[in-house]
Amino acid sequence: MLVRNHYLSVDPAQRGWANDEGNYSAPVALNTPMRALAVGEVIESRAPGFQEGEFIYGWFGWQSYCAATPDAVLRRVDPSTLPLSANLSLLGINGLTAYLAFNGLGNPRPGDHVLVSTAAGSVGSFVGQLAQIAGCRPVGLTGSREKAEIARARYGYEEMIDYRQEPDVALAIKRACPQGNDIFFDNTGGIIADAAIRSMRLNGRVIQCGTAANASWSPTPTGPRQEREILTRRLRWSGFIIFDHIAEFPAAAADLTQLAARKEIVFDEEILIGLDQAPLALARLYQGANRGKLIVSLLG
Amino acid sequence: MLVRNHYLSVDPAQRGWANDEGNYSAPVALNTPMRALAVGEVIESRAPGFQEGEFIYGWFGWQSYCAATPDAVLRRVDPSTLPLSANLSLLGINGLTAYLAFNGLGNPRPGDHVLVSTAAGSVGSFVGQLAQIAGCRPVGLTGSREKAEIARARYGYEEMIDYRQEPDVALAIKRACPQGNDIFFDNTGGIIADAAIRSMRLNGRVIQCGTAANASWSPTPTGPRQEREILTRRLRWSGFIIFDHIAEFPAAAADLTQLAARKEIVFDEEILIGLDQAPLALARLYQGANRGKLIVSLLG
Repeated sequence: MLVRNHYLSVDPAQRGWANDEGNYSAPVALNTPMRALAVGEVIESRAPGFQEGEFIYGWFGWQSYCAATPDAVLRRVDPSTLPLSANLSLLGINGLTAYLAFNGLGNPRPGDHVLVSTAAGSVGSFVGQLAQIAGCRPVGLTGSREKAEIARARYGYEEMIDYRQEPDVALAIKRACPQGNDIFFDNTGGIIADAAIRSMRLNGRVIQCGTAANASWSPTPTGPRQEREILTRRLRWSGFIIFDHIAEFPAAAADLTQLAARKEIVFDEEILIGLDQAPLALARLYQGANRGKLIVSLLG
Repeated sequence: MLVRNHYLSVDPAQRGWANDEGNYSAPVALNTPMRALAVGEVIESRAPGFQEGEFIYGWFGWQSYCAATPDAVLRRVDPSTLPLSANLSLLGINGLTAYLAFNGLGNPRPGDHVLVSTAAGSVGSFVGQLAQIAGCRPVGLTGSREKAEIARARYGYEEMIDYRQEPDVALAIKRACPQGNDIFFDNTGGIIADAAIRSMRLNGRVIQCGTAANASWSPTPTGPRQEREILTRRLRWSGFIIFDHIAEFPAAAADLTQLAARKEIVFDEEILIGLDQAPLALARLYQGANRGKLIVSLLG
């Protein structure tokens, strides 16, 4: 089918795909479009089950049009309730990761104490809100005062820890979470995770969604052994990668759409206009200059 | 109620309880009986629901008789199918730990590859057999050639690694488990666990039942960071402590009784006769000289 892209996603992984060495995914070849998630409209279709005029979300690349096969499609898009761009933010991999990892692995219960690393980030901004919706008490960590304020004001966090201002992160966690934590939603690993794990209550759940704290894993960095914490606190520490859960996307997106339609969840987007803005948007993401999910619009 | 003890359990934790510092449990006070699990017969009862002549399993201590209250009872005993002593081995905390941790947290499926540390030990000897019953392929680690042979001959293990003979445990695991592992049942932590975790397949389950490899946890020992392994392999690493699961004991014991009655599971016991043998039995346990669960009989 021929897909006309309306919105393109800008994601940190794309910087790695521009290297000549693969990691999870193969590098993007020279003179081919950057691999990217996008929302597009089916213009022509010879694919069974896909109709002209239908909107879809998938791997359509940084380009105006994509000749796509059905295996590139992650989810069909309902264009009627939320702006189309929301399919790359709230209903994209960031919102879906927060929703499926937090609810699926976190097993949140009303009254649970929840700690989130990178709380003001593209995933953490939804975890705080989902924790509030579940009746939990979310506390977040972030690396600037400004982000801490946004997370408190907009993303549901009861308290925020600006870890760059804290000489002792473990002590700061103890102060912000005096009763310990039932769920730790972690995008960083490293010393923040070491301290967070030692704040867990019995039967706590640790959700490992990323390991951004360590830039290199070769050679393997060392840290305090965790096996005794896992045993004595009866933790359940799980890894989560969103693309294992594609079958769950439609139901999760439908639920998130309802939450947003009822104004129970907010999503922040920063939309740049024009295909030529895409590389600049990626640079902006790495400078930490964006306020919300970075999206490129091709409609302007 | 007055309980006449028939069999007393000898367990490694008792050595720690004889110290003057508490850990999980308070120290045993001087001039009081050693805290111990035992199987006994109700001789007299003023406790509602407990009848004379009934057999029970619980915290009745290293003594001939115990004046017990119902909160000391872990489980009622069916004396009709298996020897009473089996309530301290197969149906005691060792067998129940193997059953409830392996089946409850391991989620075993036919064809799964299972790795077990301390495979010839009091818990590991059952995990190998339960893995075979579940249609899995169990491989074990132990510290002597003799124990490796017993584990292969009696406890269901397809292959055994004698880690004291291996200069590189990671390499030995790769050789014995060329396809990786779906379940790692761990009683040790430490470098064996580090290597085992790096043998896990996608969605593997790690069950932390003990941390015997590190004698001291103060200061916290260091090791390779595991968060990236948890993430990229989508592991689920859980801690298990048997006394969280007392409500599940009756059903687990009933199932294990049926397995033993059908000769699908074996249990090895070494029974010493007479109360005065109890301290010697504990010493024997720490020498690693026992062949099977150490039990003291008071019937001789």
